[in-house]
Amino acid sequence: MERIEHRACFGGWQDVYEHASGTLGCTMRFAVYLPPQASEPGAKLPVLYWLSGLTCTEQNFITKAGAQRYAAEHGVVLVAPDTSPRGDDVPDADGYDLGKGAGFYVNATTLPWARHYRMYDYVVEELPALVEAHFPVSDARAISGHSMGGHGALVVALRNPGRYRSVSAFSPIVAPSQVPWGEKAFSTYLGEDRAAWARYDATELVKAATEKLPLLIDQGDADELLDLQLRPQLLQAAAEAAGHPLYLRLQPGYDHSYYFIASFIGDHLAHHAKALNA
Amino acid sequence: MERIEHRACFGGWQDVYEHASGTLGCTMRFAVYLPPQASEPGAKLPVLYWLSGLTCTEQNFITKAGAQRYAAEHGVVLVAPDTSPRGDDVPDADGYDLGKGAGFYVNATTLPWARHYRMYDYVVEELPALVEAHFPVSDARAISGHSMGGHGALVVALRNPGRYRSVSAFSPIVAPSQVPWGEKAFSTYLGEDRAAWARYDATELVKAATEKLPLLIDQGDADELLDLQLRPQLLQAAAEAAGHPLYLRLQPGYDHSYYFIASFIGDHLAHHAKALNA
Repeated sequence: MERIEHRACFGGWQDVYEHASGTLGCTMRFAVYLPPQASEPGAKLPVLYWLSGLTCTEQNFITKAGAQRYAAEHGVVLVAPDTSPRGDDVPDADGYDLGKGAGFYVNATTLPWARHYRMYDYVVEELPALVEAHFPVSDARAISGHSMGGHGALVVALRNPGRYRSVSAFSPIVAPSQVPWGEKAFSTYLGEDRAAWARYDATELVKAATEKLPLLIDQGDADELLDLQLRPQLLQAAAEAAGHPLYLRLQPGYDHSYYFIASFIGDHLAHHAKALNA
Repeated sequence: MERIEHRACFGGWQDVYEHASGTLGCTMRFAVYLPPQASEPGAKLPVLYWLSGLTCTEQNFITKAGAQRYAAEHGVVLVAPDTSPRGDDVPDADGYDLGKGAGFYVNATTLPWARHYRMYDYVVEELPALVEAHFPVSDARAISGHSMGGHGALVVALRNPGRYRSVSAFSPIVAPSQVPWGEKAFSTYLGEDRAAWARYDATELVKAATEKLPLLIDQGDADELLDLQLRPQLLQAAAEAAGHPLYLRLQPGYDHSYYFIASFIGDHLAHHAKALNA
């Protein structure tokens, strides 16, 4: 593991690391923000994992969201991985919504994708193990993300009871099995068996979730993708039917951009810090 | 004037406008952040102008600095212009430090630059007139910037007593006549007469400034450009000799990036808001 960026930020350090991922079979980058508290002797800080959306790398969140200020306030480490396997050996597709930059946080089962496209296992297993071995962190974890990454955060939390103290999402794809982006990605990475899709669909998973971890979701009502790709009311109906706590906040006038994320990331950090530091 | 971006942000609006600039003889873009207070009836808010550094457009500051949060707190409008004239008719040069993206906030007097490269007049005259005619703002102005833009902010404030209530800079080029970037730009845009250079050099201007507007400067001590291009001690010596108030803060560990700006832009907004709302 090699540190390739190291920049002072709000009294701590915004770093980027590169490592050989066994899960993904390629070289990966991830960002780590270490707040000022991380340099105290014996520090063991909680971690918030952030999953980014389509086309993003580990850079988007750390340059645009302004989350470091709040992480420094609350003493929370931020970890932001890339959104797909990378490199010349990794298969790709035309378009921004499949292949590189569009891993959809699944373990692919079809060819040629199955060899490298295993972002679910990377996010749930390999990355936390790496982070917990090399940084001054505890095993108190939270997870959040945006759009495709909001989908990833919800799915990862719902499928792993006890592993995360809190979960939130901005503008998530809540029902990928029922919208064009998800149908395209899942039929490509998972094949045509919709039972396999359900294991990566928050609206399906919430129906049987044993741990009632509250879901905090912010969604802009001027989001250009709201009706076609996001459809939060599908998750809302499923959560209500299942008695699963969901705090869905429709934010008037906000769109799908990082200006929206920046405006409310402070609320999300406070939400996670409360659970992580409890 | 046409609005080409309009995004909700911290309860206000982060907009981008395009207009035909008479001063520059080309189409220009500038960003405007209107805080929530701007939508109140009869609002007349103060304005902070932000000048960006080499290679930047109107986008860098609005996507990376996280200034909107503080502008919303203080009720200050933010205006961020591009860094040079633009378009196919505008002469350019090889390299990032001359030509497009590198206007250096001067009025060029040499050929082929003199026709379009008049960023000084654009920033001092045309842009504020446009802003004050079209937005709910008062004539209370402040100015700040980064690197080449920090140079611009200091020069513009020092040359126009009474026009700005406050001035600050991040990592500014304080003595362009004495460093490689400035020598290259000034000899190209202004010719070899160093008396002409002095009118765009904060270290020269501070010697004769009649208005003792305090200069707030943040400078990272791990800035990779500190010794070659920035050299704040040259301004410090001149300000001390002239009795001009200068608050130069060397920030340990910080570099030249927007992570540095984001970490301290809240302090600068507070500094400007105090002067603007006094």
